[in-house]
Parts: sequence; structure tokens; C-alpha cells
Amino acid sequence: MSELGTLEDLPADYRQALAAQNLVPLWPSLRAVLPHGQPGPRTHATMWSYESLRPLLMQAGELTPIEKAERRVLVLANPGHGLEKMQASSSMYLGMQLLLPGEWAPAHRHTPNAVRMIVEGTGAYTTVNGEKCPMQRGDLILTPTGLWHEHGHDGDEAVVWLDVLDLPLVYYMETSYAVEGEKQDVVPRRGDREYLRGGVVPSPVFTRDTSAYPMLRYPWVDVRAALEALAAERPGGDAVQVAYVNPEDGSDCQNILGFSALMLRPGETLALPARSPAMVFHVIEGGALVSADDTAFTLAEADTCCVPGFARVTLKNRSTSEPAFVFIADESPLHRKLGLYEVRA
Amino acid sequence: MSELGTLEDLPADYRQALAAQNLVPLWPSLRAVLPHGQPGPRTHATMWSYESLRPLLMQAGELTPIEKAERRVLVLANPGHGLEKMQASSSMYLGMQLLLPGEWAPAHRHTPNAVRMIVEGTGAYTTVNGEKCPMQRGDLILTPTGLWHEHGHDGDEAVVWLDVLDLPLVYYMETSYAVEGEKQDVVPRRGDREYLRGGVVPSPVFTRDTSAYPMLRYPWVDVRAALEALAAERPGGDAVQVAYVNPEDGSDCQNILGFSALMLRPGETLALPARSPAMVFHVIEGGALVSADDTAFTLAEADTCCVPGFARVTLKNRSTSEPAFVFIADESPLHRKLGLYEVRA
Amino acid sequence: MSELGTLEDLPADYRQALAAQNLVPLWPSLRAVLPHGQPGPRTHATMWSYESLRPLLMQAGELTPIEKAERRVLVLANPGHGLEKMQASSSMYLGMQLLLPGEWAPAHRHTPNAVRMIVEGTGAYTTVNGEKCPMQRGDLILTPTGLWHEHGHDGDEAVVWLDVLDLPLVYYMETSYAVEGEKQDVVPRRGDREYLRGGVVPSPVFTRDTSAYPMLRYPWVDVRAALEALAAERPGGDAVQVAYVNPEDGSDCQNILGFSALMLRPGETLALPARSPAMVFHVIEGGALVSADDTAFTLAEADTCCVPGFARVTLKNRSTSEPAFVFIADESPLHRKLGLYEVRA
Amino acid sequence: MSELGTLEDLPADYRQALAAQNLVPLWPSLRAVLPHGQPGPRTHATMWSYESLRPLLMQAGELTPIEKAERRVLVLANPGHGLEKMQASSSMYLGMQLLLPGEWAPAHRHTPNAVRMIVEGTGAYTTVNGEKCPMQRGDLILTPTGLWHEHGHDGDEAVVWLDVLDLPLVYYMETSYAVEGEKQDVVPRRGDREYLRGGVVPSPVFTRDTSAYPMLRYPWVDVRAALEALAAERPGGDAVQVAYVNPEDGSDCQNILGFSALMLRPGETLALPARSPAMVFHVIEGGALVSADDTAFTLAEADTCCVPGFARVTLKNRSTSEPAFVFIADESPLHRKLGLYEVRA
Ligand SMILES: [Fe+2]
Ligand SMILES: [Fe+2]
Ligand SMILES: [Fe+2]
Ligand SMILES: [Fe+2]
Repeated sequence: MSELGTLEDLPADYRQALAAQNLVPLWPSLRAVLPHGQPGPRTHATMWSYESLRPLLMQAGELTPIEKAERRVLVLANPGHGLEKMQASSSMYLGMQLLLPGEWAPAHRHTPNAVRMIVEGTGAYTTVNGEKCPMQRGDLILTPTGLWHEHGHDGDEAVVWLDVLDLPLVYYMETSYAVEGEKQDVVPRRGDREYLRGGVVPSPVFTRDTSAYPMLRYPWVDVRAALEALAAERPGGDAVQVAYVNPEDGSDCQNILGFSALMLRPGETLALPARSPAMVFHVIEGGALVSADDTAFTLAEADTCCVPGFARVTLKNRSTSEPAFVFIADESPLHRKLGLYEVRA
Repeated sequence: MSELGTLEDLPADYRQALAAQNLVPLWPSLRAVLPHGQPGPRTHATMWSYESLRPLLMQAGELTPIEKAERRVLVLANPGHGLEKMQASSSMYLGMQLLLPGEWAPAHRHTPNAVRMIVEGTGAYTTVNGEKCPMQRGDLILTPTGLWHEHGHDGDEAVVWLDVLDLPLVYYMETSYAVEGEKQDVVPRRGDREYLRGGVVPSPVFTRDTSAYPMLRYPWVDVRAALEALAAERPGGDAVQVAYVNPEDGSDCQNILGFSALMLRPGETLALPARSPAMVFHVIEGGALVSADDTAFTLAEADTCCVPGFARVTLKNRSTSEPAFVFIADESPLHRKLGLYEVRA
Repeated sequence: MSELGTLEDLPADYRQALAAQNLVPLWPSLRAVLPHGQPGPRTHATMWSYESLRPLLMQAGELTPIEKAERRVLVLANPGHGLEKMQASSSMYLGMQLLLPGEWAPAHRHTPNAVRMIVEGTGAYTTVNGEKCPMQRGDLILTPTGLWHEHGHDGDEAVVWLDVLDLPLVYYMETSYAVEGEKQDVVPRRGDREYLRGGVVPSPVFTRDTSAYPMLRYPWVDVRAALEALAAERPGGDAVQVAYVNPEDGSDCQNILGFSALMLRPGETLALPARSPAMVFHVIEGGALVSADDTAFTLAEADTCCVPGFARVTLKNRSTSEPAFVFIADESPLHRKLGLYEVRA
Repeated sequence: MSELGTLEDLPADYRQALAAQNLVPLWPSLRAVLPHGQPGPRTHATMWSYESLRPLLMQAGELTPIEKAERRVLVLANPGHGLEKMQASSSMYLGMQLLLPGEWAPAHRHTPNAVRMIVEGTGAYTTVNGEKCPMQRGDLILTPTGLWHEHGHDGDEAVVWLDVLDLPLVYYMETSYAVEGEKQDVVPRRGDREYLRGGVVPSPVFTRDTSAYPMLRYPWVDVRAALEALAAERPGGDAVQVAYVNPEDGSDCQNILGFSALMLRPGETLALPARSPAMVFHVIEGGALVSADDTAFTLAEADTCCVPGFARVTLKNRSTSEPAFVFIADESPLHRKLGLYEVRA
């Protein structure tokens, strides 16, 4: 790999002539945009403590009425990208959203895809294309691209959830926009009840559901039961992990980001191979140590962290007597679809 | 549609000259092989009563030791095809198989695909590519093309199951053969436990199972629960039916035949549209009236019937107080893959 | 593989009792329907000489007016299936069709798929869903399932073509029927001109053609040129063969049967591996020796032969100075879609 | 759409407390990242004149030896993104590359995908995974993700080509890197000769090529002939456009960007609907007027321009006697794969 010419090697008037025509010489920047052997990420391994941010989120509830916020969210921003960019990674956005009893976040739809991982509180719900989805700790609720969604709250305590969106990518691609709508009529259908068991799907009069999002709510009680069953079935040390999928065709449940849940057995340590996508970890139950290359985080329940792609990550259950449950978001559907997915042994 | 020339219209010596060269004039047979508007099926609507056939099946157990039968099966043969053809329809084979305590039906594999719907008895099991699948009333067990399988029996009562195979089609295509094997070693993995819940699938360290048959046993307790949940979710008269699918990608669970389970609510009558595939109905619980065009059958538990393609079929629960549960096999994956699937309103 | 009980081993009254209930014991027939290691085909290797059959075909033109034949075809029937079954193999039908100047074979459509390989004569055409396809020696014209088609003749000499249909399979599946129609209006579009070059496809205003059959005519002049180019590109002894495909997605050009063209270089001998599908060979130019297991045929131009699946086939160019060109039809799309395709080294 | 709170509405100490925890309030930026109804692109409609930039490119040849440049490229940079970002749009990079007689741009491979549209000169070639591709005016040559490629020059005049890469997106995703390699051995195979005709593909001994990039060079002589044939076939005013595709399966020829060629008939004006992807136009032959919303460019041969997504674009042939031929690159495969593709009537 030879050393290349620099911008300074070029005559000043030549550089000016280039700029006047919107031209830039490639070679002074070639190594920077095509580094040798591995990308140079801007994403930093970063952690957000729920205990620390919770008071600020509650304070936001006091400072800003829902009508002035529409979505009352504190964005978990990665300093590697600059906080104002509101990115956790190149393609993931994270936010902690607060909804207070009686509040309503009005209906809209937009090109970016979102999921909601409920963190605390009961009584809130999200209505997605007419399907009213109850929100309880650990539930995952999809609000995919183009689907109408709004949040309401019939309970009496603050409800908080973690939003995960592909907003940074969709915005980068110059495709991000929203449309506002009226309060939706609720239809009775509930996908989480229709796809209760694996291996069988509704087929009334031999007809399958071919809509893009047949299941919008993944109840934690069911996902947890699936993890427990898997742990019982695979005693030998295999990772106990399930992916959230479209129950009709097994594809990733959303277009761009992937979601999974992991159970760390008591005392278990799990080393992940280096993979191209950035990842987000959020603890649903228990506690975990997350190390990514030279950085390490100690996560308690409801804590969240992000690690860049190509990092070597190790997860360790902090308890030797209780399992830990971790929600994971990553960019793997995006990388696979674009032919950029890579795993290094 | 004009009238065409007949074989008799042709001179005898011309016909002889044709036959000598393995030639046949098309036009005398054209209307027969291409009837107007709808096929002319050989498959007759036919019913087999379990109560009636059971004594003969038990007698087979006395007359023929398992070593002389390998698979002790009474084939449910459609008289429209000629009994000796052992066909329920053009592409479906049905058999009632008896395994007695302590017997063993040795390992083999073959090109035709089979499923087993357990009819009575406990203690038997099928081992498929090393996975030992318990057999209980209503369970569906796959033994797909090319997979080793054998049946054993650790219990103390006769066990009977209904075999459904695509043997007639695979035989017709001149692709049917078997290979015999040694007793299989059992591996601990159990697919029915790994795919317990809908919408989530195992993904240890972000890796999915891409094998063709990740789930080999569909426990009736789970399928029944799925039907009950669906019935609760769809009060409005929609058919309560689930398809047995590959839990990883939602495709039909086998290559050629399709399988589903239907719950008829108390008193419910369900009219099916005319569809190109022939169908088989087997009552798992309760009783049903099945009518197909001008034929009607009264089915009790464990009874089985077959109806030809393009028939107009109505299913009626015989009870006004209890649900009925019906297992259905049909040729729809075959018809869809070959571009021949048709539904008539 | 133990010896099994026979039908005669069973008491006569037991056998009567079985038949009365449409029941058949499996074990006496088990080895016949599931032979060990390889299927037992009914299809025989069979050859039809064009020189020999041509006079009989012309005589058919005298004996039977087109109005009495609708399609004036001599079917190439495989004696292994019984001539009256009109099958070349389990799933292939072959026929030599004669159309005389001024005749018209009226419009109809049907579930079986057909292709036409033109054998001799000019001036005829086939209109398929409104696209008028000229018919010249070696051209392949598709009339796929459900598409309207009719044949006309504006020339002044007898035109003959080879029909290849999946009629035996579609008939066996009880899905074969036809509908008659009016003379079609011709639309100007010509698929063979729109897909002239490989690697580029029409996309007016970024829109692709998603119809099932964007190309209905494969001109021999183009297919021959593709073979010549391939022969020039691959001097090293690779087989020079091209498959007829849907130019939009590269899938087999029809649903059930596959079609390809082969060039045998001067003096070339090509040994094919044993494959599960039956095959048909028809010589477009030159001459070839075809051997299948213990049978051998000497084919001249326009001759046709059929070989069963799993046969070991060798093709040899009869000339050491001229290439030979062979059209091939086989059952491989069917076998692949149903998971039954097999190649033996 | 109500007015939302601003950053300034929040107490300064609260904002500091947020920043200290890498938190950012969403609502002050909500409308900016999710504008109403349509994205707000940074990409400007921008044009680069070949006549103007050519002297600067030739000067680069004098100023910087190939060893100091590795790839001697002037990047066509969009001022809307900032020139130093070297982007034509969010996901497209454009560069004019100069190779002088006897020069060699050494072998490497990288995650971004590139294509080369030859602009002038003869004698140069690109070797891609061992296939040596001649470079002539109008040819399109692929160097897809992960494939080794190098450029050499056996001729005696300057050769220039237009590079189109998805580098900005791949870099944004933190997946961009390169690996350097040795001079490749050339293998004799030439994909452009193997896929000469549409509708037929090589299938030696019934085997298809399943590699990701079976065709690496799309000769202009063939693409132009396809456009001429299409123009003759569709006289009625349809757009005459072809897409560059994988000849085996008809998919876009690369993973992220799409490529097509357009013929404007003499005097023709073509209005494109507003579509989400940004587009690049490069004139291969003739001249064209390109207008995008309120901007208009007059393009001569070898000129290039870029327009943002969602713009309404009109193309007009500047000549009333000669056709114009335009090469188009766009982001539509990316938008389709991610579920973000949109067309507005
Ligand atoms: Fe939203
Ligand atoms: Fe078996
Ligand atoms: Fe026909
Ligand atoms: Fe490169």
C-alpha cells in the first residue's frame, strides 16, 4: 500500500479551478474513505443508565406538555456522531419516551420504522393501523414504515418505553418524512393472539395473510417463555436467543433493523464474533456486563448501550443464580439486503 | 365446439401403420383428455369408518407379524382409481397403520413424503433423522422425503395412526424408491419445543436454522390451543383454520401435500369454494357432516373421507354444543407450484 | 430387506372383508411401489423417425379435414405406457402436428402447457394472447397454461411442428380441461424483439414487465447464434448447451417442463450423468447417436427419441466435420419444484 | 401540525444535564428530521460539463503520477453535501478517472460497488476476478463488492471513464474498507459473449451459473442495438429504456445502485414521475435538456448531471433528427430493498 499524494501537493490555483467546477481530487482522501482491512467507525461504544436518565425524563414531563412535544423523548445520542445528530449508530436511533396518564401522542405515519420496548408502567397503549396494542414491561410493539400510529394512556402512572428507529439511515437517504392524521378507529383483530403457537398459522378457508406486518405486538410473557423453553432444550451451552420475525414468512419483523432477545443463564458468559452491524443492548431483567473491544459497561435492569460494528463483544450475566434477559437491536437486515453483512471468526 | 373424427373413421390399415410406429391420432381422444370447462376426475368421494375398519386392522396384527409387513398398513383405497392402485386421489395415499407394543418398524428413507396423524394409543414414537417424536392422539409427525425414519413402541396398547403420503404422484412420476437403514441414534434436539411460540424463532448468535424441516412434530395440544385462540379472536364467523407450516419460513411443511386443522364451532356450517385440489378430512374430535356435490358423509371421531378437486364441499358440525376438530390434507402445494391451483367462487 | 407377506398369505374372507370397505393391505405391494435404490420406470427408450412418420402425417391431412381434427396431430406414444395413454413419459406428451395452407386451428386455452418446435415448412403462425408468432424451422413457440392460442397458415406448403406438452401429468392430476374461444385480435408487440440481447431488459420509465410469459417466441436464428458464441467461448470441452428461460427472471420458460438446445461439436461425444427426469431429444440440424443404458438410436434431422429418468445417456455427433444441434425437453422443473430432482455422478 | 417547543424553551442547566449524559430532547428537532409530506434533500441538482473538466483531468495526469494516485480521479462533488464529502447524492459517488498509456491501477477489492462507463479512448481494460474486460466508449463494466479489480492500458491515447459507486452509503454505514492484492491471472471466460442473446442462458449439462455476477461487461454496441430494436418495436411513444441486469435472474446488476440506458427519439420529450431515488444522467451520444423542478441543464455528449429524489424530471432530445442516448444511474435497488421506494403520479 503505497503513500499517496496530498491535497497540499497540488498547486493552489489548480485546487481553486477544481472547486469552481465542483470537482475534488480523490487520491488525497482515498485511504480515509477506503481504509485497509476494516472500517473506521464514528460510532463509539456508549452506555446510558436508566437510573441516571430517568429523573431528567420525568423532568421533561414537567417542563414540556405533550402538546408541545408531540413525542416526549430524550434521545440517546452517540457522542461519536455528535449529539445533535441524534444517532446511536449510523443507522439506529434510540429514545426514551415518556407518556403520562391521560396524555395522547397524536396519530401520524412516516417512512422510518420504529419499535417500542416497554420499560416501565402500565396502562398505555399504541394503536397501529387500528390494532390497539397494550404496552407492558418487555413487550415489543412495531410501528413500521407507513403505518398509522398513536399512543394513549388509560392508566395512572408514568409509562416509559425505549424507541428504536432507523431514522438516521432514512434521513441520510433523503427519504424521511411524516404525515399527520386523525385519531384512528380501533379494529378488534389482535395479531399476537392469532400467532400464538409456532409452526401453525391462520389459514381461513385455505387463505394466508399476506400483509407485510401480520403481527404488531410481541408480548414479553411469550418471548420469555420461548427463551425458557429453548434454554431447557439446549442445555449444552448454545446461546439462548430468539429473533423477532414476521410469523407468516419468517423474515425479519421490520425492513432495516433486526431485533432479538437473549437469555444469559446464571453465570453464563457469551462471546460474540465480530460482525459488521452495530448493536444495541437493553436489559429487560437482571444485569449484564457488556464489553466491546477495550470498553466495558455494567448494565442493570433498563440500562442500554450501543457498540459499533466489527467490535468483539462479550456478554456476561452478573448473577450466578438468576438468568438475565437482554433485548438486542442491530443493523443486520440492512447489511444482509445490501450485501454488506460480514462475520469474522 | 365441433364434433371430431373418431378412430373408426380411419381406415384399418392406416391405424395399423400408425401403431407399428408407436403413433396415435390425437383428435379421437382430444375431448376426453381436454374436457370443456372442468376436469373429469376419477377420484370418487369416498369415506372410511374407523369403527368398521378397526377390527380388520387389529386382525391384521394377528395375521401378519411386523417382520412380514415392515409397515402394517391397511390402505384406504379409492374405488374410482381401482383399489389395487392404492390411491385416495391422484396424488394422495391414505393408510391406517398398526403398531403393537414392543414392535419395531425398521429404519428406511424414501422419495415420497409422509405425515402421520395419530389416531389412538400411547407409547409409540417415530424417530426422524435422529429426533425421537412421541406419538399421541392428534399429533402430526412429518417424515419428509429423504429423511430416515422408523417407528417403535414402548407402551402396552395398540397404537394406530393415519399415514398420508404423496406416493401416488411420486410413483406416477417414476421417482419412487426406498433405501433401508440401521436403527438410528437418537439426538436430544426437539423441534416442537424450539418453536413453541409464534413470531419468534431460535437465532443463537444471530444464526437461523436453514434446514428444510426444522420442526418434525406438531403436538395436538398446541395446534388445538391455536385454534381455540383463533376462535376467541375471530368471533364473527370467519373459518377457524390453521395451516401446518415450516416455522422458519412459513412455507408448507412438506413439498407436495398441504395440511391444516379446522375447528367447527358448535352448530357451525362452513361452505368451501370449489378448488382444484382433492382433499381429505379426518375427524380428530367431535363429529361432522361432509357433503361434496351430490355425496354426503356422516363422520364420527377418527373417521376419514376424501373428496375430488373442483367439488363444492360443505362441512357441518354435528353438535350444537361442542366444537368439532378436523384434520385436512390436500394437494394445494402441488397445484400452486405447478401453476394449476384454481379457486372458483 | 426382508421378504414380506403376500396377498395369498391372507385368508380369502379377510381379503373380501377388506375390499368391501375399500381397504387394501400394503405389505404385499410395498416393494413394488417403493423399490430399493432406484425407481422402476414404465417409460421405455423409444425413437420416432421423421422420415417414416411423415407419409402417415401427410396421409392424415388427406383423411381428416382440420374441422374434424381441430389439431391434426399424430401422437408419439411410448409403448411402455400403452399407446392409448398417449404419453412419451410420465409427464411428457409429444405430437407431430400438420397444418396445411389456408387451414386454421381455432383458438382455445387449457391448463396443460405446450411448446411448438417447428420441423418444416414456412408461412404458418401461432397467435398467443394476441401476439402473432411466425413459425420457422427450429423456432420454439410457447403456448403456456391459460393463454389463448390458435394456429393459422398464410403460406403454400405443408407446415409441421413437434408439440411438447405436460398433458399426461396435468391429466393425471385431474386438472386438465380446455375452453374454446373466438379468433383473437392481433396486438403489435413482439417479445422476441424486445429481449434481443442478454443482460438488458426493457424498463420504460423504470418499470419492468412482470407478466408470466414476456417472451413467447425463441427464434432459432438467435438460439443457434448463442450456441455458436458459447462454443467459441468455451473451447475446452464444456458442453455447449443453453436453456430457454423467462428473460425477465431467468426461471424456466414454462412451469412444468424444461427446454434446452445443445450443440455437439464435430465429432463430439457427451456423456450425461444419470438424472431423475425423463428426457426427449429432437435433432434440429445434423445427426446424432443417442444411447440410453442398453438402447441406442441413430437420429437424423427431425428425428425424435425419449429416454426414461435415471438412464445413463450418451450423445454423439454423427459427423466429424459439421456440428449437430439438438433440442431437449425434460421434466426437470417439475422434479426441482417437488423436491424430487436427483443427479447421480 | 402544532408548533413544538424549542431548545431555548428549556432551562440551560437542564440542557447541560442532558448533554452530560449524552441525551438530546427530540421535540425541538422533530419537524426537521420528519418534515411534512416530503423529504428535505441536501442533494442539489448539479451538472458537470465534460468539456470544462477534461483539461483539469488531463492536468491531473501531469501533476500526479499514477503511483501517487492509485486511482487518478476527479470526483464530481455535489455542493449541497459539501464538496469534501465527495458525494453526488446521499448514496452515489461520481468520478472521472484518467488512465494514461502504459499505466496500471493496481489490484484491490473493497466493500463498495463500482461501475465504469467508458467516456473516451481505447486500449484500456479492467480485469475483474480474472476476467479481462476491454473498455470502449459506452461500455459498462462492473466491479462489484468484494471482487478483485485492476485497470491497465495497452493503447496509446488517454482513456477516461466515469466511475459510479455507492461509496457514500457504504461509508456512512461504517462498512467501507479495501484490501490490496497482486496482479491477477487472466482467465479466458467472457461473460458478455456467453449471454449474447436474451431468453437463453448457458446450461452445460443442465447446470446454471449461480455466481453473483455472471456478466461483468455490457458492451455498448449490444445495449445500443437493444435500444434500437425496442424503439422499432414500440413506435407509439413508450419510453425506450433498458435496465442492466444479472442475465441469470434478472435482478439489478449490482446490490445498491441501478443502471439503465435510455434512447430519446429525435425530438422526443420524456416526463418522468417524481420518484424517491436520486438520479444521475450521462450523455453517451447526442445531446439532451434535463430539467429537475426549477433547474435546467443543457447536456452535450459526455456531460453528466445529478438530480435529487422526489424531483419532477423532464428529458428532451436536443436534436430533431438524431436520437440521443443517455446512461442513467439511480438509487432504486437500495430504496426497493429497504421498503422506501416511492413513485408519485
Ligand atoms: Fe412515529
Ligand atoms: Fe416410510
Ligand atoms: Fe392447445
Ligand atoms: Fe476500486
